[in-house]
Amino acid sequence: MKEFDFIKQYLVARQDKDEQVVLGIGDDAAIIRPQAGLDIHISSDMLLGGRHFFTDVKPADLAHKVLAVNLSDMAAMGATPKWATLSVALPQLDEAWVRAFCDSLFALADAHGLQLVGGDTTRGDWAFNVTIMGQTPQGLGLRRAAAEVGDDVWVSGRLGLACAALYDHWNEVHLDDDVFTMCEAARLRPQARVALGQGLLTLAHAAQDVSDGFAQDLQHILTASQVGAVVNVDALPTLPELKQYEQWQQWVCAGGDDYELVFTAPATAREAIMALAADSQTAVTLVGKITADTGLKLIDASGEEVVLTHKGFDHFE
Amino acid sequence: MKEFDFIKQYLVARQDKDEQVVLGIGDDAAIIRPQAGLDIHISSDMLLGGRHFFTDVKPADLAHKVLAVNLSDMAAMGATPKWATLSVALPQLDEAWVRAFCDSLFALADAHGLQLVGGDTTRGDWAFNVTIMGQTPQGLGLRRAAAEVGDDVWVSGRLGLACAALYDHWNEVHLDDDVFTMCEAARLRPQARVALGQGLLTLAHAAQDVSDGFAQDLQHILTASQVGAVVNVDALPTLPELKQYEQWQQWVCAGGDDYELVFTAPATAREAIMALAADSQTAVTLVGKITADTGLKLIDASGEEVVLTHKGFDHFE
Repeated sequence: MKEFDFIKQYLVARQDKDEQVVLGIGDDAAIIRPQAGLDIHISSDMLLGGRHFFTDVKPADLAHKVLAVNLSDMAAMGATPKWATLSVALPQLDEAWVRAFCDSLFALADAHGLQLVGGDTTRGDWAFNVTIMGQTPQGLGLRRAAAEVGDDVWVSGRLGLACAALYDHWNEVHLDDDVFTMCEAARLRPQARVALGQGLLTLAHAAQDVSDGFAQDLQHILTASQVGAVVNVDALPTLPELKQYEQWQQWVCAGGDDYELVFTAPATAREAIMALAADSQTAVTLVGKITADTGLKLIDASGEEVVLTHKGFDHFE
Repeated sequence: MKEFDFIKQYLVARQDKDEQVVLGIGDDAAIIRPQAGLDIHISSDMLLGGRHFFTDVKPADLAHKVLAVNLSDMAAMGATPKWATLSVALPQLDEAWVRAFCDSLFALADAHGLQLVGGDTTRGDWAFNVTIMGQTPQGLGLRRAAAEVGDDVWVSGRLGLACAALYDHWNEVHLDDDVFTMCEAARLRPQARVALGQGLLTLAHAAQDVSDGFAQDLQHILTASQVGAVVNVDALPTLPELKQYEQWQQWVCAGGDDYELVFTAPATAREAIMALAADSQTAVTLVGKITADTGLKLIDASGEEVVLTHKGFDHFE
């Protein structure tokens, strides 16, 4: 299979119609025509084999993850995903593998109204880069720097599952089969909280997605907003079955790869946030409070302070 | 050196002011505010160590190339470069290396008014992905599909130098020292023809950058435009010294990595194109004609047909 056949058959042929896309895949660049009154949000994520995924991963799972981690960035801004470019390095072009990868990629893209408008293909070690673009009304995007003292701290979905599955892969723990199945699903098929994020545009102050670990990612909000927070670790949503493992706090607070949203909002928005959670079919949990004292204080349900050995993931530590 | 220190010190600190950038590096996404009446052009290129560059390349050369190949895509659309994201995978974060890389990257970006608005850093095998965005007035972007029968075929700069340097590296030929120096400079520091491309917006019909080899890249224009071309190989601009090597036609027609522009324009535009070449300090050469007969016919100065063994580069051939 040749590079250009691949591009023609699997990418060009599957472009949707989007009236803002003046020119899609197949030229030196794609052309989009922005809509007046909207801001464009841009984010890039690179995933490497052996680092972000096992290279024997199923192509459908890999495609899902490559796109979901980028959709999650749009969710964290409250942006509506619109366009993406995909750069791919693969050791070879196996047609069955490519077909499964593309089927999964376009299924997720279509579900979000996202159009692939360009990219690059090359032979090499497993590497995937997506640049995603989305839209919000001007000035409404959810930033990290907007948390206010007195805000509630919320988190979506459940934390720590992906990391627990990794620990099982590494033979550091052995999860029960049904628990492993749930954790592995969370690891392989993260659900970007796009609908929740869009709904939060007018409700939340600050937001961020949890990719490197809850504590570290919340800290980004705190630093950018020059505030602090107290978070109740026992209130952090996870699988109850994980709490029997001594590592559970580590997984939940610092595991990473969750792709949930952590966000802050005034207490007056609680009812609206719960209604949004129901509308967007996304669980949300109140886990703490923004404080004037800077720094992140983790406490347990008894009020004791919790100390983590690692706060999150640094790619070069 | 930690990931976040790197981002803060070398990337966030060096962002320019661009009033269209509402939010730069440091959140889940950057936010840009499009200007009314302009189209946005988007392109991505991934460069891998051992494939697109030698991993002992100087960081300043590497940074230049990573950005230049993307600027070249904007040049081919006639677009003004505006914003870019950069994803980087490196085996380690060596501070001197990173400083040299960033100095070179920002020097080239600044020279083109390009602002880095986001990206990703991770530990891994050498991989770089840039997504670049640029602007043109609505509807004016230079497409591949716009060549017309009777158009002149032009090419900028000189072809085949980068490939000749590679052949020397591979010990397939031995270039004289001064010739090698010129060829190596072309390979390491391609000059994206941005000013030429912008000037061609109102003069040329179709354009494309020469990255995979002149014949293959011109063929993309011909296929998209449903036309053919006759090109005189002896007229293709190169270093005269390369013509003593039996591979010269191969280098010039199919070498790739040239990052020149091939474009078509009506004969009535010749004078304006020569004036633009002078203004943009970019040599341009008339090399052929667009024909109604499809396919690309290469001839030499005596009118004999030239047959290439390879037409260009396919990453999976």
